[in-house]
Amino acid sequence: MSKSKKKLRIIPLGGLGEIGKNITVFEYGEDIVIVDCGIAFPEDEMMGIDLVLPDITYLKNKRDKIKGIVLTHGHEDHIGALPYALRDINVPVFGTKLTLGLLKNKLEEHRMLGDTNLQTVQLGETIELGVFKVEFIRSSHSIADAAALAIHTPVGIIVHTGDFKIDYTPIEGAPINLARFAELGKKGVLLLMADSTNAEREGYTMSERKVGESFERIFANVPGRAIVATFASNIHRVQQILNVAIRTNRKVALSGRSMINVVNVALELGYLNAPEDIFIDIKDINRYPSERLMIITTGSQGEAMAALSRMAASTHRQVEIVPGDLVVISATPIPGNEKMVSNNVNMLLQKGANVIYESLEDIHVSGHACQEELKLIHRLVQPKFFMPVHGEYKHLRHHALLAQELGMASEDIFIMNIGNVLELDASNAKIAGKVPSGKVFVDGLGVGDVGNIVLRDRKHLAQDGMVIIMITIDKDTGAVITTPDIISRGFIYVRESEELMSEMKNIVKNALSECQGKDWSTIKNNVKKSMSEYLYAKTKRKPMILPIIIEI
Amino acid sequence: MSKSKKKLRIIPLGGLGEIGKNITVFEYGEDIVIVDCGIAFPEDEMMGIDLVLPDITYLKNKRDKIKGIVLTHGHEDHIGALPYALRDINVPVFGTKLTLGLLKNKLEEHRMLGDTNLQTVQLGETIELGVFKVEFIRSSHSIADAAALAIHTPVGIIVHTGDFKIDYTPIEGAPINLARFAELGKKGVLLLMADSTNAEREGYTMSERKVGESFERIFANVPGRAIVATFASNIHRVQQILNVAIRTNRKVALSGRSMINVVNVALELGYLNAPEDIFIDIKDINRYPSERLMIITTGSQGEAMAALSRMAASTHRQVEIVPGDLVVISATPIPGNEKMVSNNVNMLLQKGANVIYESLEDIHVSGHACQEELKLIHRLVQPKFFMPVHGEYKHLRHHALLAQELGMASEDIFIMNIGNVLELDASNAKIAGKVPSGKVFVDGLGVGDVGNIVLRDRKHLAQDGMVIIMITIDKDTGAVITTPDIISRGFIYVRESEELMSEMKNIVKNALSECQGKDWSTIKNNVKKSMSEYLYAKTKRKPMILPIIIEI
Repeated sequence: MSKSKKKLRIIPLGGLGEIGKNITVFEYGEDIVIVDCGIAFPEDEMMGIDLVLPDITYLKNKRDKIKGIVLTHGHEDHIGALPYALRDINVPVFGTKLTLGLLKNKLEEHRMLGDTNLQTVQLGETIELGVFKVEFIRSSHSIADAAALAIHTPVGIIVHTGDFKIDYTPIEGAPINLARFAELGKKGVLLLMADSTNAEREGYTMSERKVGESFERIFANVPGRAIVATFASNIHRVQQILNVAIRTNRKVALSGRSMINVVNVALELGYLNAPEDIFIDIKDINRYPSERLMIITTGSQGEAMAALSRMAASTHRQVEIVPGDLVVISATPIPGNEKMVSNNVNMLLQKGANVIYESLEDIHVSGHACQEELKLIHRLVQPKFFMPVHGEYKHLRHHALLAQELGMASEDIFIMNIGNVLELDASNAKIAGKVPSGKVFVDGLGVGDVGNIVLRDRKHLAQDGMVIIMITIDKDTGAVITTPDIISRGFIYVRESEELMSEMKNIVKNALSECQGKDWSTIKNNVKKSMSEYLYAKTKRKPMILPIIIEI
Repeated sequence: MSKSKKKLRIIPLGGLGEIGKNITVFEYGEDIVIVDCGIAFPEDEMMGIDLVLPDITYLKNKRDKIKGIVLTHGHEDHIGALPYALRDINVPVFGTKLTLGLLKNKLEEHRMLGDTNLQTVQLGETIELGVFKVEFIRSSHSIADAAALAIHTPVGIIVHTGDFKIDYTPIEGAPINLARFAELGKKGVLLLMADSTNAEREGYTMSERKVGESFERIFANVPGRAIVATFASNIHRVQQILNVAIRTNRKVALSGRSMINVVNVALELGYLNAPEDIFIDIKDINRYPSERLMIITTGSQGEAMAALSRMAASTHRQVEIVPGDLVVISATPIPGNEKMVSNNVNMLLQKGANVIYESLEDIHVSGHACQEELKLIHRLVQPKFFMPVHGEYKHLRHHALLAQELGMASEDIFIMNIGNVLELDASNAKIAGKVPSGKVFVDGLGVGDVGNIVLRDRKHLAQDGMVIIMITIDKDTGAVITTPDIISRGFIYVRESEELMSEMKNIVKNALSECQGKDWSTIKNNVKKSMSEYLYAKTKRKPMILPIIIEI
């Protein structure tokens, strides 16, 4: 076998040092394969931002080298950026049936389905993309049809777990193909890239069936209406909820756009089983008595506009929460969402509903492997090198420590940042260089036009509002024509502050007289400084100050 | 004994339906006693707000009836609003030594200590305030010198637990005086008001000593510097940390204003024990080798400006985190703070520190009673009526269910909102009426001047920024003089959007020509509407649009 002189370059462009926007580039000579292409949700300080995309500048001039994008599963943080990325790098996309079904929905919404090339891959199948042979291995996660990947390259085999847990008793289909991991490990795996999300947690993640058992107990004797909120993408959870509905002779109405979309895709493609007549339109719920109704809804994370939140806030058009309703929130709040979920719980309780949520019952299990499951994968795969992925720094770090506990040398473990290049050949690996990487903000229809300056301004405006000072100046003489006018928003309620207003006008007048006849820049700076100092001394607040000069 | 024809009125003005700003009014005839007077911390959507005070409009014209304010303990959500409230109702304040010590600090900062009347009460002592006899009962909480109250009134005894847990092995002092609760219960208690914070949690809260045991294990062999973050007000926790420092022969430096203040008060008043020479100034830490250093710091909740957060972000003036540092975050994130704490953990780990936080070790225990402890208090007190307090609706509701489980009738249990009046006589209780209640925002020096309109504007500006359109109009003809000028902030980065800018100017010109000669209000509305529709169609964003007319 010829020894390759080229190196394999692996470049995460998202998903490391963060949870979200997973995307990894595999580059060998003239061939590139991309694994996943997801979005991240905006942090609190990313005001007004809708989505965060990975910065794929590195790929934009390499369109011809990219042989394809391979998807591990259909969650937003793995496929959500494709409608944007495919505009720049329109290459074939490979994934399992459900994954592509969910992607098609998205592309249709962006009106680009017709321009893209999607290729279904079976679990167990291997596809050739240039020098790469990408093998899809059956896995288990909180969404059906999830795959781990074995990427066969000239320098060796890379095993990428994708997002996974080890569920020995999955709701549907065969369990994760541990035997294949073992085979690959025996063959010899160069690098393992594995999911670090739950690396801090001891033990193992419970089987999805556990939730079904809890549901049986909870729904054993429910005299009224049942409303269950969960992640639309967790088809197996939805199946268990449907099973309860079937067993308790209830009709099922869906609420929330993503719930309706995903369930429809899943039914179409055969990932959900239910009698056809079980579903009714949400508009028809009043035709049935409460004990014959089940509503499956979005909003398990307390998202403001999601269906359950609207029910809690009494703004949902069809569903009004009444005493006797049982609401089950079948999810754990993602870090950052705890207060929003709590607000919903409080509002639903106040309406007289009985609310069951994760702190009260086992109605959710994680989709990510805990420490014992991770150790199993490491032992089966026995990689030469290890790169923890899919986690914030603390997760990657804990996963690295776990690998060391199992005997790996720290120099064979690579905790990377996005943009780092890991260079490998058959016997060595090292971090060699960096490429552009980062975030691109989507706000409304705009992609990338909201950057740090705009966000900084929004933050300033949010904190203390703004004060606009209008100054009119004679074009010829440079003299100030009229009394300066002051308008504020988000600063103070003006009607209650007439005194402050008139003092502010004096401040402006004084500042102007100090720089009579000077250039506009000097005038503006002087007015801004005087006003800023005055307002801070008076109110301890720092509104954005915007002097505007109109020349007449 | 004469039967009183008057009723006792109990009016919570804060602390119910929320966690924070606890304050309850007890009113009988011409006498009023107030229990606690705290602040709440702003929610995310209360942009730019520093503190939230309870609205005490109800009390403002009743100054002469108020016999005093009684404090259960020194936490911010029980004493933080006093510097503001005492400006309007300057009445004597009663509390235990440490509680008043912490209050004095605050009043000094607000430069009002000299004008207030603070009276120290011993645990076990009873004070007379008009017809009320208020008995301070030794309790246990996450701050020393905490009291429960037995309020003896003409219609009966009210037991108010304050914030509490049942710790059988407190770090310092005697345990909670369960015998007194039993005695009162035997005498006959009309109403129990009890802490609902942990009413959702089964079992019991661990003793504070448990944390000490964890510390012993963690600090058994620490070769480098130790940095421990915790709540400044938890004196017992600080004592345990000091004990570790003494045992491992370390000097102790304090970081963070509240840590320094509270520890000083506690040392002065004898609530903390440590050899005098153990403390060093933070500026002198470099004089000692790492293994002889312990830094006790604020920032356990990830608060942006707190000491630990500054250390994590490399902006702390004296402390630079280096590999070998052990950082212990001895607190659980309060709901809402999880991401902030997580960010600190990630940054500290990236600097090479070893970080121990609550998900890894038992280094924090709650200060609030769980279900078994609550059941004990209910059984000892055996009240006729019950009002759950100190909790969001879900907490109050769970606590009410717990009382029902113990046999109380639901009509004897009152889940109140702030502003509700509970009217009691010796045999009956009912909710009778409502008084003004709510929130007052503090922003900088302003109290109450930031209301809903200002907050709504800040939120709008934060989401999509603003667009200012300046229109100059001839005073006599009403004709538009110059090309309208457009300035935006927080909307779009203008330099990249010249095309959009010129289209926007056209939109304005057209809108103006449509209403030539009309009144200003019509002109502004037309311009605003046209711009708003145009921008939404073009960008799917809705910046605040501010047309300004300057008449020349």
